[in-house]
Amino acid sequence: MNIIERLNFDAKGLIPAIIQDKETSQVLTLCYMDREAFTRTMKERKICVYRRSKGQVMLKGETSGCVQLVREVFIDCADNSVLFKVDQTRAACHKGYFSCYFQKLDDDGNIIIEEKQVFDPKEVY
Amino acid sequence: MNIIERLNFDAKGLIPAIIQDKETSQVLTLCYMDREAFTRTMKERKICVYRRSKGQVMLKGETSGCVQLVREVFIDCADNSVLFKVDQTRAACHKGYFSCYFQKLDDDGNIIIEEKQVFDPKEVY
Repeated sequence: MNIIERLNFDAKGLIPAIIQDKETSQVLTLCYMDREAFTRTMKERKICVYRRSKGQVMLKGETSGCVQLVREVFIDCADNSVLFKVDQTRAACHKGYFSCYFQKLDDDGNIIIEEKQVFDPKEVY
Repeated sequence: MNIIERLNFDAKGLIPAIIQDKETSQVLTLCYMDREAFTRTMKERKICVYRRSKGQVMLKGETSGCVQLVREVFIDCADNSVLFKVDQTRAACHKGYFSCYFQKLDDDGNIIIEEKQVFDPKEVY
């Protein structure tokens, strides 16, 4: 069976994909793929996402150059989500941080930012 | 502002939460939380999930004993998802594997399983 027939895309035709940096094991982002984005990702070995805000498939990093090269692919026990281990070019977050999870919560629920920006978004977008 | 007011729960009142093992950095699972599950998780420091199949909030590991102790909490750049770093008791997957992402895809899209089962599900559930 083709793997795409096995995956459980939701009612909107999407499946969540966790992107993890292969080298540092940092979780970089959570994105969504439709069948086209998943197929392109597997073929081109670069993460392609379905941008819900734009309603279209895009190469992750198309504007910024911060592409994600696919190294390994895993699917979960219920075929409901995908995990991609990638080589991250420069930084994953459009706010200029290596990971989108740069906002840490302290015990009181306050946000603290310990990460340093890799680039200034104003200079990239 | 209370953090729960800042998070973007979807139309069904849910937000995706990535669970990562603090020690090994392995991504363990992707789950969903409603406001109650998130609030309980933050208060009890154990992952609580909204089980979509059962329509209720449950302590992760309630049946199996494989609870996840919260060590660190991060939210993404758009407040659309949460990342929890946890101490995993025994194994995260109901199929007996440490991580739910034990199915690896080879270059031809075939599933290969390199992980070893930690426990036999028949003996636990």
